[in-house]
Amino acid sequence: MITPVDRRAESEAAALHAALAKPPGALGRLEGIGVRLAGIAGTVPPPVPEPVTVAVFAGDHGVWAEGVSPWPQEVTAAMVGTFCRGGAAINVLARHVGAEVVVVDVGVNAPLDPAPGLLDRKVRPGTANLVHEPAMTRDEAARAFAVGQEVATGLVAGGSRALVMGDMGIANTTASAALIAAYTGRPAAEVTGRGTGIDDATLARKVRVVEAALARAEADGTIADPLASLGGLEIAALAGFAAGGAAARVPVLVDGVIALGAALAAAVREPDAPQYWFAGHRSVEPGASVALDHLGLEPLLDLEMRLGEGSGACLAVPVLQAAAKILNEMATLDGAGVVKKE
Amino acid sequence: MITPVDRRAESEAAALHAALAKPPGALGRLEGIGVRLAGIAGTVPPPVPEPVTVAVFAGDHGVWAEGVSPWPQEVTAAMVGTFCRGGAAINVLARHVGAEVVVVDVGVNAPLDPAPGLLDRKVRPGTANLVHEPAMTRDEAARAFAVGQEVATGLVAGGSRALVMGDMGIANTTASAALIAAYTGRPAAEVTGRGTGIDDATLARKVRVVEAALARAEADGTIADPLASLGGLEIAALAGFAAGGAAARVPVLVDGVIALGAALAAAVREPDAPQYWFAGHRSVEPGASVALDHLGLEPLLDLEMRLGEGSGACLAVPVLQAAAKILNEMATLDGAGVVKKE
Repeated sequence: MITPVDRRAESEAAALHAALAKPPGALGRLEGIGVRLAGIAGTVPPPVPEPVTVAVFAGDHGVWAEGVSPWPQEVTAAMVGTFCRGGAAINVLARHVGAEVVVVDVGVNAPLDPAPGLLDRKVRPGTANLVHEPAMTRDEAARAFAVGQEVATGLVAGGSRALVMGDMGIANTTASAALIAAYTGRPAAEVTGRGTGIDDATLARKVRVVEAALARAEADGTIADPLASLGGLEIAALAGFAAGGAAARVPVLVDGVIALGAALAAAVREPDAPQYWFAGHRSVEPGASVALDHLGLEPLLDLEMRLGEGSGACLAVPVLQAAAKILNEMATLDGAGVVKKE
Repeated sequence: MITPVDRRAESEAAALHAALAKPPGALGRLEGIGVRLAGIAGTVPPPVPEPVTVAVFAGDHGVWAEGVSPWPQEVTAAMVGTFCRGGAAINVLARHVGAEVVVVDVGVNAPLDPAPGLLDRKVRPGTANLVHEPAMTRDEAARAFAVGQEVATGLVAGGSRALVMGDMGIANTTASAALIAAYTGRPAAEVTGRGTGIDDATLARKVRVVEAALARAEADGTIADPLASLGGLEIAALAGFAAGGAAARVPVLVDGVIALGAALAAAVREPDAPQYWFAGHRSVEPGASVALDHLGLEPLLDLEMRLGEGSGACLAVPVLQAAAKILNEMATLDGAGVVKKE
């Protein structure tokens, strides 16, 4: 059950901002972010969103067989190992901002050895090839969604005060492009990008794959539930995670094109959930900007990143926290002995 | 004596980036930032730029008498007091990113009581009214510039490994607009903004004031040295600070329109200095974007801020540090057991 954020707390936070020792509005978007954090927490000033946890959901994709990625499918499992050993970009960035990383296997197509920080929540070992059939059943998608909700609920119960959406899954930008096309109605060519950095020929094939998947979902009637028909196990879990964070009334930092595909699915199910979300960054993947516009989210950073793992969202954590600290720690104009003319 | 950054270290850092456990280029601008940090330090991987010091240079402006700001001139001194008590936005943001703040009185138009963290380097108590005469003599500008150099040199000698440019001075966006017009050749109306948030009538007056100042400097022949003729004491000190940081081979984070006016003056004197500079953010002041383009700097953040004090640059510190940590801490593809197809 997701309820709207507290509009009265938002108004009070806006009034507090107007009294701080600075010209009104001079902190730009930091002010609106602080106001929204107050609405989410229901208190003024809002608590500083810390500690922060990044959850990286991992899953494989049957559509990999269509040649949409230059990377072997085994890279998904290998990167899960790298996450657990602390050597991936997301580990570096999480340590930098003081966040923890948990990794959730919701659908890796390989048996994974137990490791610290790795949760085994495998629903199935990879999706089916969405060009030929639904990526998963509705029941499987619902189970993956529930995994994400459960992880979010558990992290907040354990003390996390902000959540970062992370992903790993070779070929998942193909699934995400199909999802974004389905949820926004935009053509495949507009929302399909180069992912890990494919060449022109592979990009052309990838666009055709996304078009074929959409046509298949129309034909078999599963287009009504894009998340199951065109999504991924980690994407369904991320949708549940975004909804679960909102239900637990903590800010959720949305990452790039994979997290945004999940966010579109979650927003359809829970229309008030986006009030709890902040877009961490603008990925260079074209589908990311389409999804951001559709959700009405303005990203905090634009550093031309396209890695996934939650990396862009994680790097935005200090901005979110700064907005809260401004409302907690700054002197007022009165306190600073400053009086404006007239 | 400022020498170019180390191009060989830059090449080695770029090669290291290509070997890390991620698709090439996927970290976007973080990669180029890391490469430039390697060039600045001359080592690969580059050291993480910490500790960081924000220097806020404060000075008053004779042009305040033209009615270009809604704030009394006494606010400059009042805000210096707030900086020293730790209650201003820059104090909150500096604590957040783990940076120290030093405040330098280079030209406040009031006697200031000694305070912890306040350096008394007053060259004169405020500039002259630049509409009617040069803001200061060339000797005064040189002395303020030397103050900034000395502060930068001293901070780096004391252990600082990155410097943030901060400013305080009621009416200083008027001086900065005049400087930016003089250095870039753009008309006053294009580079003059609303500063602390003035209304349309005040903005129109401010544009006329900038135009009159430029005409006066042309007429009296002082336009050849815009920093003295049209600048401010804190702006001249910031120019020296930006040059001094480059001479000490540490990264310098440039803030908004005041710091950028100073950076234009420093770049004319020291053409290699901008290689050591990172634009922290894109201020909404129109002169900021003009100066960024002229200097060829791409800002790290764009959060619609316009406060000064070094606030926008300070908030970019975690991005700079993240870029260095990526090169220091990430596993390589080999180490992660990942092999690309073909």
